[in-house]
Amino acid sequence: MTGKSDAAKNGFLELVKRIRYYNDAIAVLYWDLRTGAPRKGVSQRAEVIGMLSSEAFKLTISDEMGSYLSYFDDPDNGSRLDPTMKAAVRECRKEYDKYKKIPEDKYREYVILTSEAESIWEDAKKNNDFELFKPYLEKIVDYNQQFIELWGYEGNKYNTLLDLYEPGMTVEKLDEIFSMLRSRIVPLAAKIRAVDYQPEDQFLKQYFDTGKQEEFSLFILDRMGYDFDAGRLDESEHPFTTGINPGDVRITTHYYPNDLISSVMSSLHEGGHALYEQNISADLKGTPLCEGASMGLHESQSRFWENIIGRSRSFWQKYFRDLQKFFPEQLKDISPEDFYRAINKVEPSLVRIEADEVTYNLHIMIRYEIEKALINGEINVADLPTVWGEKMKEYLGIVPPDDSKGVLQDVHWAGGSFGYFPSYALGNIYSAQIYNAAKKEIGNFHELIEKGELKVIKEWLTENIHKHGKLQKPAEIIMQATGEEINPVYLIDYLEQKYKEIYKLEL
Amino acid sequence: MTGKSDAAKNGFLELVKRIRYYNDAIAVLYWDLRTGAPRKGVSQRAEVIGMLSSEAFKLTISDEMGSYLSYFDDPDNGSRLDPTMKAAVRECRKEYDKYKKIPEDKYREYVILTSEAESIWEDAKKNNDFELFKPYLEKIVDYNQQFIELWGYEGNKYNTLLDLYEPGMTVEKLDEIFSMLRSRIVPLAAKIRAVDYQPEDQFLKQYFDTGKQEEFSLFILDRMGYDFDAGRLDESEHPFTTGINPGDVRITTHYYPNDLISSVMSSLHEGGHALYEQNISADLKGTPLCEGASMGLHESQSRFWENIIGRSRSFWQKYFRDLQKFFPEQLKDISPEDFYRAINKVEPSLVRIEADEVTYNLHIMIRYEIEKALINGEINVADLPTVWGEKMKEYLGIVPPDDSKGVLQDVHWAGGSFGYFPSYALGNIYSAQIYNAAKKEIGNFHELIEKGELKVIKEWLTENIHKHGKLQKPAEIIMQATGEEINPVYLIDYLEQKYKEIYKLEL
Repeated sequence: MTGKSDAAKNGFLELVKRIRYYNDAIAVLYWDLRTGAPRKGVSQRAEVIGMLSSEAFKLTISDEMGSYLSYFDDPDNGSRLDPTMKAAVRECRKEYDKYKKIPEDKYREYVILTSEAESIWEDAKKNNDFELFKPYLEKIVDYNQQFIELWGYEGNKYNTLLDLYEPGMTVEKLDEIFSMLRSRIVPLAAKIRAVDYQPEDQFLKQYFDTGKQEEFSLFILDRMGYDFDAGRLDESEHPFTTGINPGDVRITTHYYPNDLISSVMSSLHEGGHALYEQNISADLKGTPLCEGASMGLHESQSRFWENIIGRSRSFWQKYFRDLQKFFPEQLKDISPEDFYRAINKVEPSLVRIEADEVTYNLHIMIRYEIEKALINGEINVADLPTVWGEKMKEYLGIVPPDDSKGVLQDVHWAGGSFGYFPSYALGNIYSAQIYNAAKKEIGNFHELIEKGELKVIKEWLTENIHKHGKLQKPAEIIMQATGEEINPVYLIDYLEQKYKEIYKLEL
Repeated sequence: MTGKSDAAKNGFLELVKRIRYYNDAIAVLYWDLRTGAPRKGVSQRAEVIGMLSSEAFKLTISDEMGSYLSYFDDPDNGSRLDPTMKAAVRECRKEYDKYKKIPEDKYREYVILTSEAESIWEDAKKNNDFELFKPYLEKIVDYNQQFIELWGYEGNKYNTLLDLYEPGMTVEKLDEIFSMLRSRIVPLAAKIRAVDYQPEDQFLKQYFDTGKQEEFSLFILDRMGYDFDAGRLDESEHPFTTGINPGDVRITTHYYPNDLISSVMSSLHEGGHALYEQNISADLKGTPLCEGASMGLHESQSRFWENIIGRSRSFWQKYFRDLQKFFPEQLKDISPEDFYRAINKVEPSLVRIEADEVTYNLHIMIRYEIEKALINGEINVADLPTVWGEKMKEYLGIVPPDDSKGVLQDVHWAGGSFGYFPSYALGNIYSAQIYNAAKKEIGNFHELIEKGELKVIKEWLTENIHKHGKLQKPAEIIMQATGEEINPVYLIDYLEQKYKEIYKLEL
């Protein structure tokens, strides 16, 4: 029996390693495409990536995989597995079922549809033409509704989509979380809008040499404990992190000559994602557990470094003098406090990706409510422009002048990523909850930052979040790390305190 | 019948494309490893490359491949193919037979042996310890002898190895070619040694900013017609070219702060390789014909740009003024003629890769004679240090002080690459023969160079060499391009004329 069980374990691990290695190669090919692959090689590269993805996909739903999973389904075999093996089997089962339950033809049609829709969306956004995109979006919603029927669902249909990105998350929980957020953040944002004061931030828009910006990004990544022997920093059009494996986690940023803060913040943001991937336990290498536990938890790490640390007063008490050394002329009349206030300016924006800490989550709630209603058939795609405007008015007090700056602004729906948006807000909520726990446990949190001892904080995150990879569900990790379930009150308190002080509000 | 034949053709092309795409991905992964992949990702990367290589290898010798090849072996099917298909089938047959004729176990042992031998060789070279490397080299020679028996051979056993790198080349031809070379180059080298005069080249060893060196490499690559939309220049420990596909042909160089000429010459050299790969006809994309016709012909293109063009007087008549602009201080007292002489200094060296144009081929002949004798059992591995010293004395008039600078200097034998070395000399011979043909046909060859119209020369090479890829054998390409078979007399005449003038020799 042991012989057979060992053979099954080893065979299974060998198979998951092969899938992992395909994805490893694909990640390098994508990274290369986005950081400097020559233009004329792009079309063949797309075909190569297509072929490798299809090989990995075939293994994911192979009969071989099916028979290992059946073998471990038998409690005689499955119950004896160690926690890592159990979790690996769980993840493979999830992927296997996800694709096996959809007829192959239907899935292929959907892949073609979404890839066409992405380029149609680009045109539609450019030409402010929702009607062009509408039939594609209608089909995509329809396919997602069909998939939910095939996959099955408990409670709300949208739960099945949420679970793809945030395992265990439900509409029931999210409604409650977002309702709490809404009840205090909408008034907070309104109060800030009503105040006359705005921090002065024009000095952030001077000319800043991009080479110097790069040097500062490297400096700050080093300080936060990013391991350059296990990664590298490059430039790309849109910043991203790619975790090829824990020994090779690459990040990119983008340098704008007339914007100092964009590259600094995106380096901190991507650096936060990268610390997560670099510090996953070595035991999980080569398994499907060697990645973040969820999109929301991943985002919590990037937001933690970008916002909780990177937009804190203590951080710039320590590092503004360093930044000044890189740009002595441009920043000569600026104090750390001026800088802190400038990078924390709150202003309602039409576009999610330009939003500040306070209003960001409101953008997410709008998308969440729309997705939930669409998937449950309570509104139609044709209603979206109207619904979008109403919700913007309600949450942010502004209305987009056209669909390009409204319902057409994000690519997610064109790619079929329904259920993904909530991850961004969950990331913010987790980040504040983790911050609260870390402060309690470490004690002198802001003193550490002021002394530049960021690595103590990084170690705490590794111990409590990073090292677990995808071994446990996000809710379990949050419970262990913070002693309670997800709780938006920490984010609300953090935002209220911080912005009350900056904007001198009466709350 | 047409239906079946079309299905076979399409199926075969689909299969070869898959093999090609695996190799495409592997090429990017290797390039990345050598240009900046983080240290801690290297071990997993090696496993990923191993897995992809093994997938490509399985397809190369798959039953599917076997049955296509059998189908086309039938003259009813094979004779109707167009020339591209015929050549693709020929190349796949060659690879298929090469690996199918060796028992799988034996081949695996050999791959492990050579990969061990490479790291043992490194130690042996570092510690000047031939005895350490000897047992490995004995086994490698033995395996090669066994492979030749399994593959079969015509005439000399070594022919089979030559054919791996230079299809159609034989010991009989090579003996004749090398004997002509020897009879005039050995005396030429001896006469140069006997002369008192040496060009002054100390100024090449000043400090040259590596950033400026890079700018000059980019400048000169642009002038020779390297397409930066289909490639990029990076730095690596050892310069190399990787032709991922004609739309993505990357080159590297290495910048030494105290050596101006190393990066310039390696950029020209790798640029020559790259022009070949960038300009293969689009018809051959995705087939095994989309690469150089042979190692020798590939080397002819790199040597053409490095030596025939890049070490010519006319080239520096045109470009020395540009180089001076990059390094005005260091080169202020140097004339184009001083520079031309400095970069053409002839000095017998112990080490092949440091050799000048005149003595380079003598290094190759030594290796050729040793390989031929080893493979035919006429000498033993144990004899190598002695034989090496004798031949160095005979050809170059100098004897290495130890094995590190002698028989242990090159990695090729540790990797099992017997039959490869002659390609370097063939490249030199082809390059001079091509030069002679191009001069005749274009007419004002050196005038064009002096006017900086290098692209006219590039176009001629594309038309006569590059575009054919591997569609024809190297001998056919050389015959079409130059009107005759391989003929070393052009190289000999070129070297005699050039160095007679520089060293004021009586010949």
